[in-house]
Amino acid sequence: MLTNTLIKELNSTLPRECILTDVEERYVYSLDASNDPYVKAKLPDAVVFVQSIEQVQQVVRIANRHLVPIVCRGAGTNTVGACVPVHGGIILNFSKMNKILEINQENMTVRVQPGVVIGDLQEAVEKVGLFYPPDPSNLKISTVGGSIAQNSAGARCFKYGSTKDYVIDMLVVTADGKLIRTGSNTIKNATGYNLGSLFIGSEGTLGIVVEATLKLIPKPQENQVIMAYFDKVEDSVSAVNSIIENHISPATIDFMDRNAIETVERFYPSNLLLGKAAALIIEVDGFKNSIEYQREIICSLLELHNASNIKFSMNNEDAEQIWNARRSSMAACTKLRPNVTTDDVIVPRQNLAKLIKGICEICERHKLIICMVGHVGDGSVHPQIPIDYNDKDEYRRYKIAKSEIYALTVKLDGIISGEHGIGLEKKSYISNVVESGALDYMRLIKKTLDPKNILNPYKIF
Amino acid sequence: MLTNTLIKELNSTLPRECILTDVEERYVYSLDASNDPYVKAKLPDAVVFVQSIEQVQQVVRIANRHLVPIVCRGAGTNTVGACVPVHGGIILNFSKMNKILEINQENMTVRVQPGVVIGDLQEAVEKVGLFYPPDPSNLKISTVGGSIAQNSAGARCFKYGSTKDYVIDMLVVTADGKLIRTGSNTIKNATGYNLGSLFIGSEGTLGIVVEATLKLIPKPQENQVIMAYFDKVEDSVSAVNSIIENHISPATIDFMDRNAIETVERFYPSNLLLGKAAALIIEVDGFKNSIEYQREIICSLLELHNASNIKFSMNNEDAEQIWNARRSSMAACTKLRPNVTTDDVIVPRQNLAKLIKGICEICERHKLIICMVGHVGDGSVHPQIPIDYNDKDEYRRYKIAKSEIYALTVKLDGIISGEHGIGLEKKSYISNVVESGALDYMRLIKKTLDPKNILNPYKIF
Repeated sequence: MLTNTLIKELNSTLPRECILTDVEERYVYSLDASNDPYVKAKLPDAVVFVQSIEQVQQVVRIANRHLVPIVCRGAGTNTVGACVPVHGGIILNFSKMNKILEINQENMTVRVQPGVVIGDLQEAVEKVGLFYPPDPSNLKISTVGGSIAQNSAGARCFKYGSTKDYVIDMLVVTADGKLIRTGSNTIKNATGYNLGSLFIGSEGTLGIVVEATLKLIPKPQENQVIMAYFDKVEDSVSAVNSIIENHISPATIDFMDRNAIETVERFYPSNLLLGKAAALIIEVDGFKNSIEYQREIICSLLELHNASNIKFSMNNEDAEQIWNARRSSMAACTKLRPNVTTDDVIVPRQNLAKLIKGICEICERHKLIICMVGHVGDGSVHPQIPIDYNDKDEYRRYKIAKSEIYALTVKLDGIISGEHGIGLEKKSYISNVVESGALDYMRLIKKTLDPKNILNPYKIF
Repeated sequence: MLTNTLIKELNSTLPRECILTDVEERYVYSLDASNDPYVKAKLPDAVVFVQSIEQVQQVVRIANRHLVPIVCRGAGTNTVGACVPVHGGIILNFSKMNKILEINQENMTVRVQPGVVIGDLQEAVEKVGLFYPPDPSNLKISTVGGSIAQNSAGARCFKYGSTKDYVIDMLVVTADGKLIRTGSNTIKNATGYNLGSLFIGSEGTLGIVVEATLKLIPKPQENQVIMAYFDKVEDSVSAVNSIIENHISPATIDFMDRNAIETVERFYPSNLLLGKAAALIIEVDGFKNSIEYQREIICSLLELHNASNIKFSMNNEDAEQIWNARRSSMAACTKLRPNVTTDDVIVPRQNLAKLIKGICEICERHKLIICMVGHVGDGSVHPQIPIDYNDKDEYRRYKIAKSEIYALTVKLDGIISGEHGIGLEKKSYISNVVESGALDYMRLIKKTLDPKNILNPYKIF
């Protein structure tokens, strides 16, 4: 009954074609990219394709009147259930608010709507010689709004930081439908509280980002990708540490373990070398004349740490082929079992070798396949565990393994998400890594900014 | 009466030698580096030199019982009255909590107490090949705690960002005396809200930072400082834009106008060239073999924009001499009139030439001396106006000029502080640049985190 009134009100406020209410259509929006049955989502009552800031405000006001939740959604690539409803409500779909509003070359900023695909944004700014570094693996479909909600990072985080380091201003619709501006068009800001940072990474629980101004940097003149193989995982991690200790700051230092290499090569042949325990993918960038210098130091350090078959890209196509191999590891894993899961744990880099070893042991003990990739320069790994959600015993073992992986991460002074977020999947673990005092403050802030619990409720904590 | 009880309780809780109560001693702490009579401060009731986190918590609990304000203070280099009391209370002096607790070379982090002097921190980490970029001009005395409170930046912000980009974890004593941890020892964090960012730049109004873990980067192999002169301010600004458009990203792009050059040279002879309208100080850094490349491109662009007398540092001493000249501009200004004032306004770089020109016109109209320096790569300038606070007419004209400078900044899409903060001096202007909706949220957050208004009350808004 409530739903009927709600839909009626939505229909009378917004163009009819912007609202989906059929059960089949709503079903799609009860899932995220994980497809994990942990998402015990109720279907949303309606999916609304918003087209303007005013429409977002109108929907929020309707949600306030009916006291129903609002869950924002970009491309739905999240894997922790951050963008699925828990108790119905309205999905705000931002795919139609996907315009790049302004590229300001002189100020080196870009102003975008939240539905802009990150890859499209990068392509557009690179055309004028500028660069937006954050590069989540799914950048060809994932959106700026989602990456702000989750504070996404990607392979280039080691050198260039994560999304929060690039957002200088936002327009945010608040829980009661007001529109506030959180920052300025300037590169620095010491004019009042840093409101913007509170919304970045808050998974849509504190406000709805409807426009963002992002800082850009000059596009590096040149880049080169180096790939190297190792017979021991430990050697690959020592090589990473050694490169960093030698004050080379590659744009990316990524990792694939034996299973990840073999699974990719089996299903997406990419000239990867089989039979090796690990591979590193290192991208250097900068001025043209620094590339060879960086590469030579890196190659000598790789050799010192027993790397073999070191090769490097000679052109953009070579580089793209290596990255495509790395990025296809999750898709390749889906060929092993019907479902693929990914995780996101991070430790201080000094504990990385222990983390990787420990995760492999845990999965072996629970008879699970594990394909590990990661942005190891940051101390961050993504354990990908292909399973069959319908195999109850495997699913049970998988859940136990996850909880052991989180416990190990905590033991190694790490946290349970570096770039994917907490969402629904990890909320029962957050108190293991964030102490109760800080959690109390987070809850207090949620209660203050969203007293009616309208915005993406029951997430994070 | 209240004061007596308060002092008695402080004395019975903390070592006697940690507490100053003499009127002469307290007077020192009623002022900041501006010495501006706008600071209509009442003397603090007591100055407490805290030595441990527990002592900070004890003092906060006492302040809660007596409902008296707590104002934190590092070196007192603030120039907007952020660290002075408005209605008495307790000054928490952090100069004894000045230890570097741990430099973690592998993880590239440093853990410090808030009273550590930024220059000391930089020296310590550079000894092991690491680098902490934020470099406020007064880094030889200013402290990490103060720079977190104000989100300080400095000349290197253009390439390396401001303090907020380097704080990954903090211990914060809350308004009611609890101790919370805001982050993690990891480079990325998507585990709950970004609590830390809320405290950074909040000028001590939301919590008391008692320990911080800072991200470090590899120390650049080499650097070189280029100095160039211009007959027209416009040419210097075009040169800046041109360098950035050519995708060179210098570590710093600083500016001195005619008066700043002449005043420095008159009182601190530094081989600066007189009779020029402006000078740029550009520092490039990076791999050894990139320095010459960057310098040559920059020099050719400088020449294209009519620069003359381009020179560059041949060694560290040369570089230091140029920077010392730039950094002594405020001290030099004190020789012109008994007092020197500095400000901190920032606009999108595309509007920088208009801002500089406008500020000069405003000061001329009000018959004020103006020496302008700034981090122009960021669009940020520091107008330094030497005056005599005791000359009532001059002071009145100065105050009008300031308010006109802020109005101009707003007109040019800028904000009234990029790195100094709002404090007491600019609070009546904040509503001109931060819209009421965002201000309401800031006030709401203040009320939520500090309901008794204990922490640095009556500041910012």
